[in-house]
Amino acid sequence: MTQPLTVAVTGAAGSVCQSLLFRLAAGEPFGQRPIRLQLIERPEAMQVLRGLAMELEDCAFPLLESVTLHDSPETGFVDCDYALLVGAKPRSAGMQRIDLLKDNAEIFAKQGKALGQYAKPTVKVLVVGNPANTNALIAWANAERLSPSQLTVLMRLDHNRAKGFLSRKLGVSPQSVERLAVWGNHASTQFPDANHVHINGQPLRRGLDIDWYREIMIGEVQLRGEAVINVKGRTSAASAAQAIIDHLRDWMIGTSTGDFVSMGVFSHGEYGVAPGLFFSFPVTCRHGHVDIVEGLELDDFCKKMIRETEQELLRERQAVLSLLPEKSLARRGFTSLWGSLDCAE
Amino acid sequence: MTQPLTVAVTGAAGSVCQSLLFRLAAGEPFGQRPIRLQLIERPEAMQVLRGLAMELEDCAFPLLESVTLHDSPETGFVDCDYALLVGAKPRSAGMQRIDLLKDNAEIFAKQGKALGQYAKPTVKVLVVGNPANTNALIAWANAERLSPSQLTVLMRLDHNRAKGFLSRKLGVSPQSVERLAVWGNHASTQFPDANHVHINGQPLRRGLDIDWYREIMIGEVQLRGEAVINVKGRTSAASAAQAIIDHLRDWMIGTSTGDFVSMGVFSHGEYGVAPGLFFSFPVTCRHGHVDIVEGLELDDFCKKMIRETEQELLRERQAVLSLLPEKSLARRGFTSLWGSLDCAE
Repeated sequence: MTQPLTVAVTGAAGSVCQSLLFRLAAGEPFGQRPIRLQLIERPEAMQVLRGLAMELEDCAFPLLESVTLHDSPETGFVDCDYALLVGAKPRSAGMQRIDLLKDNAEIFAKQGKALGQYAKPTVKVLVVGNPANTNALIAWANAERLSPSQLTVLMRLDHNRAKGFLSRKLGVSPQSVERLAVWGNHASTQFPDANHVHINGQPLRRGLDIDWYREIMIGEVQLRGEAVINVKGRTSAASAAQAIIDHLRDWMIGTSTGDFVSMGVFSHGEYGVAPGLFFSFPVTCRHGHVDIVEGLELDDFCKKMIRETEQELLRERQAVLSLLPEKSLARRGFTSLWGSLDCAE
Repeated sequence: MTQPLTVAVTGAAGSVCQSLLFRLAAGEPFGQRPIRLQLIERPEAMQVLRGLAMELEDCAFPLLESVTLHDSPETGFVDCDYALLVGAKPRSAGMQRIDLLKDNAEIFAKQGKALGQYAKPTVKVLVVGNPANTNALIAWANAERLSPSQLTVLMRLDHNRAKGFLSRKLGVSPQSVERLAVWGNHASTQFPDANHVHINGQPLRRGLDIDWYREIMIGEVQLRGEAVINVKGRTSAASAAQAIIDHLRDWMIGTSTGDFVSMGVFSHGEYGVAPGLFFSFPVTCRHGHVDIVEGLELDDFCKKMIRETEQELLRERQAVLSLLPEKSLARRGFTSLWGSLDCAE
């Protein structure tokens, strides 16, 4: 029998996990490997989580070896191969963005520490809970032993949304849209970039309606999450779960030849982006390794858009500076995270 | 390209469909065939449904050819290959079971008529909404042109639950539990039958703790739905969606050799069960065709349990008699549904 995979999930009683957990248990992203689920929630959500665990039992999944429930990351992350950080504190009415950032920073600092102490040293961490990019930075900075390459941020929902918009506009199958990228922050400054797209293997450039793309599509992708809330009355859930499945499958198994996808990864200065941010780039994956696609030509419009979303991430980082333990980072070879980053990983 | 499958789903904005639709769109039960989803809801739920449709767009599913939204079965069932009748009126506080039966009978009579008129003549219909067995009877009786073999009732959630209980008790993988059956009504009279079970190909009979099975397991399976509600505060949703996927996959592709599953199918008197009921039997499937497993030995205990659930279904049928159009049934060769059924299909 293949070695089982241990997958820890935070926010496990939330709406995304209502469908995500069942797809993980069915073996979707990981193929035919036995799965152990370690589900983590706040103490007040444990009751709903127990109900979900009953439902998981009720599916008689052949690959699901065990399900354990945890009200702390310290027990939940023990020996996990994957940690899916789905939970985050949502913004409540009247709350300032800065308070949201700080509240979540504390949560992710705690989770980062626990990951560094209890997860497998080879753990792969996917950050989903918002503000996801900055949460990833906090988690990594607090996770002793973890290299930044072990963490990625979910941008696949944005990526899939952009792909959907473009394929509907062009009247082609989403499958035929390749080399799309979403750059930057998983927030409304993100930059959906259709400039390198191939349709059925051919460059789209001349076939792209530039006015529609710049005036309509970019804004619609950036604000799609809010549009869904306005129509449905609830945040995107099943589409986020699907994006997580897609992201994990690509991360584990690999992207298609010639194509790339969007993932938030640690920047070392690629494309002039400030080092020390978790920033979404076009990437390829192979056997669990993620590479930023190099050499894409960026015109002034692209550069401006990328600068804008980078500035937002720099402001976010500034707001949570106190939770980035510089000494620990220095020990790990990141002598100065906020200047000319000297990355010795 | 393979011919697309058109799948109509009622109750499409409900909790089961929050995960079901995405798994259908991902091509789970139907393999690599393009899918057209025709989603049906009551007019007052169309807003939530529009939000779900946005989320389906946001997944950029390669196989999803189209999604259309309908507030009536007459348009929603047009040319469908599969109709998944998931929606039903739930029981409200203080409502009598008889009123629930009658309200749903009217809904399913209307849906049955629409299926007979607008669906493909070869349509396969899966009834999920409760009271599912009697709803299936009503839908079929009102669907001119449809043979009862074109309808099945979801019993797979009960089946999977029973498999889960047994595998946990025995400490084996659910996969190794075969030849389990759940007989009768998708209600608390259902009979989970472990008497024919094989574990890893060997008969369990002597290894089964009969007291535990009769005193504990049967009751726990029968009342599992309520237990989930009590813990979670909501009805089973994702586990029902998983059961629908499992049911459809087996129906379309076939059951494993040597194993059987439980489906509610039209009875012609098999095992002494009254003809003209949709009753759950152990079945095998092959290329879309369902066969009731013959020749299982039933001891007195089994016979008594089967009789009990049959009696409940007969009472349900009696309560909705006015919605079973005898003349139309007579034209189709069912000269007397409620006596010695003369089945000339």
